[in-house]
This record gives sequence, C-alpha cells and structure tokens, in this order.
Amino acid sequence: MPARDLAIGFDADDTLWRNEDLFASMHARFGALLARYHDAATVERELLATELRNLAPYGYGVKSFTLSAIETAIHLSSGKISADEIQYLIDLGRAMLAHPVELIDGAADTLAQLAAAGGFRLLVITKGDLLDQQGKLARSGLAERFHHVEILADKHAPAYADVLRRHAIAPENFLMVGNSLKSDILPVLALGGAAVHVPYHLLWTHERTEERPPTGGRFYELKTLRDLPAVVREWAGTTRK
Amino acid sequence: MPARDLAIGFDADDTLWRNEDLFASMHARFGALLARYHDAATVERELLATELRNLAPYGYGVKSFTLSAIETAIHLSSGKISADEIQYLIDLGRAMLAHPVELIDGAADTLAQLAAAGGFRLLVITKGDLLDQQGKLARSGLAERFHHVEILADKHAPAYADVLRRHAIAPENFLMVGNSLKSDILPVLALGGAAVHVPYHLLWTHERTEERPPTGGRFYELKTLRDLPAVVREWAGTTRK
Repeated sequence: MPARDLAIGFDADDTLWRNEDLFASMHARFGALLARYHDAATVERELLATELRNLAPYGYGVKSFTLSAIETAIHLSSGKISADEIQYLIDLGRAMLAHPVELIDGAADTLAQLAAAGGFRLLVITKGDLLDQQGKLARSGLAERFHHVEILADKHAPAYADVLRRHAIAPENFLMVGNSLKSDILPVLALGGAAVHVPYHLLWTHERTEERPPTGGRFYELKTLRDLPAVVREWAGTTRK
Repeated sequence: MPARDLAIGFDADDTLWRNEDLFASMHARFGALLARYHDAATVERELLATELRNLAPYGYGVKSFTLSAIETAIHLSSGKISADEIQYLIDLGRAMLAHPVELIDGAADTLAQLAAAGGFRLLVITKGDLLDQQGKLARSGLAERFHHVEILADKHAPAYADVLRRHAIAPENFLMVGNSLKSDILPVLALGGAAVHVPYHLLWTHERTEERPPTGGRFYELKTLRDLPAVVREWAGTTRK
C-alpha cells in the first residue's frame, strides 16, 4: 500500500469529461452566423483574438466566451448584427452551461480503482468558472471520489504551489493528471512533482505549447486514462522511501 | 492572548470594500439607456428579474450582470436596441471590472489591529466571480492580512460548514463579519458560530431578508468596522475555556 500522504490531482475539462468539443461546435455555429460578413478563417481568427484579449479581464469559462462572441459579432458585422442574433449567442452560451456532462472513456473506472486501492488523496484541480465547474462535477457523478476540489483562476506553478501548501502535500508526493502540457504538466514538473499527460483529440490554441517535458523520470504520457492505475503503482513505488 | 485556533471570517464586497454603489451606478446608466422604451421603474424591475433568474445558470458577479443587462435591453426594446448600445453595456461591465477598489472606512486599520494582536486565523469568505474577487483582493492591499481566501459559488450554511471542515475550525471558534444578514450572519449562527453584522448603506434586493437573528449571545451588530476589535476581544474571552 502506498503511503497515506500521496496525492493525485486531476484536471477536469478534457481529462475527466469532454469540453473542447462543445466550444468547437459553438465556434462553428458562430462562423455560420457571421458567414455573410466574413469568411470562416477571418471569423475564427477574430473570435480567438477576442477570447485571448478578454482572458485578463474575464478569465476562463462560458460567460467569458459568450461576451467575447457578442463583442466579436458586433465588430465583424460593423454593428449590423441584430439584437435577435445577439440573443441567439446568449442562448448558445446558456445551452453550453446546461449541456450534459460526457465523461472521458475510462474516467469513472479509473477513479473507482484508485479509490478502491486507497492510500491516495484525490483532488480535482481545474480552472474556469466556479459555478460552472462545480455544476459539472456534481453532474458528472464523480464528485464523491475526490477529497478536495480546487477551482483556480489560472493553473501556473505558483497556483499549484499554493494548492500543495494549503493541503500540506510535498511536491515529490504529488502526481498531476491532465490533457494540457501547458496547464497540467509543465508547472507541476517545475515544482518537483510528477505528471501524467493524457492528450485529448482537441486542444484549445491557448493551451498549446512548443515546450516538451523531458521524458522518463517524473513524466508519463498515456493514450488513455485506463492505463493510469499501472502508472500510479509505478510512481508510488518509486516515491516510497 | 486568545487561543491559536480562533478564526475570523470577513465578507469582502461592502464589508471590506465598496461594491453595491458600483452596481447601483450601472443600474442608473442602464435605466438612462432604456429610458426611451420604458419608465425607470419598469426597467429596474425587469433588470432585477433577469439578474435573479440568471443566478442559477450564471452565478454572481460582473460577467453575469453584463449578460443580464444585454438580455434585458434586447427584451425591453423588443429587439430594437442597437449593436453599439450593446457594446456600450459590455464596456460598462469591463469598466466595473477595472474599477479601483475603495476600502470601507476602518477596514485597513481594523485588520492591522487584529493582525498585530495575533492569535487569530483571518479568512476572506466571499462569493462571486473567482478572477474578479481575487483581483479586487490583490488591488485592495489587504491580501497579506489573510491566512486563507475562500471564494464560494454561494454562501449558505453547507458552504460555510465545508469551509470550516476543510480548515479544521470548530464552529464555536469561528466569528464571521459581514454586511448581509442572509449570506454572512444567519448561516453562521445556524452552524453554532458567532457573527458580526456591519450593515452597508446599500443592500442588493437579493440579499434582503425579513429574518432577524436573536440578539445577544453569539450575534453582534456594529455601525463601523472600527468597533470590531473590541467585539473580538469580548468574543475571544467568552470562547476561551
């Protein structure tokens, strides 16, 4: 049995449940709405630019996306977009918030196995909108598997360091699992933790990075969450004094 | 000296810094924008109704308010509101997010006194938008006074119970300070904690309640935060075994 002070953090969006598919589908509908003003590539580029510019004032999440979509529509239509079309964008955003949570293959089984094995504190460590992420976790049916839920404004090394400090987790006893090298893997490796990258077939532009972690040692890459328990056993073995 | 396990929680908006004034000023501008469609009372009633209806999907905060204002403007103008006017509402929301933090009289002095006295864990316990609240705390200059910051989706008894459990604070060792009987006082008293009500001159309709806590015992009411250290001394004296 691993020591009781080992902790495993899970990213949520596109690690435990699907998320980026929904944003991609909303981008496509947005492109269709603006198609009479600009070609698809221009619309996509402008929407993305607005989203990135608005990260500083708004942060991540569906409300931010909705406001960015409205602003981009006004800009790209030179103010000709109608109030009904703006209401349509608001309705799309609300549909995103109410969308059923679709678990990633293997998420439920893997968490059940880790819980049954015992000896690990399991955390959700995600960013985005507080209410939306709490709602998704509740609807996911996975909430009871986790000892702690941390919803952060952003996931950089100081934010992880703060989480580990607050929960009295030594970095060398911490393993983070997620789909984003930038948000889930690199900052945790930088702190001296271990990390498991499980890529998702879609990755938002903002999450992309050219940086690759050194292979071996504290970094693992998996095709599916179903292979996580084996990696956790290996990691727990190397961690145990 | 009080025991080290005593903890004092502070609400933030309209307890540590001004907030409702800003929303009131935005409501007034919204009324002026819609004045050619409806009288001020109708506009105010509709905006408030939209805000309350949108609390479930959107939660609290400026982004929610902005989306509610846009939706209400479309509805009240029967779709005649222009894209430029909607952009104006987006700009108003962004101005709210960038607005300087104006401390409530006595907040800085009182926190300095409590910190100097020592022996208390000081927490911020607020609701609303994660990024916005973190930003306001950082800009307030008060952040270093606090041991923990808890930003919650809502402030009801189970949410407080969760905070106290996570920080291993016994309810009888906890004192909450805030301007809202509904969100800061009644749920904490219900859990067996103590609470200090410091009313602000404005209170959002949604925060109003007819319920009044029983006076005496674990409930205190103050006109100004400047009187808080004396109350804390009294409370700490009764709490110490």
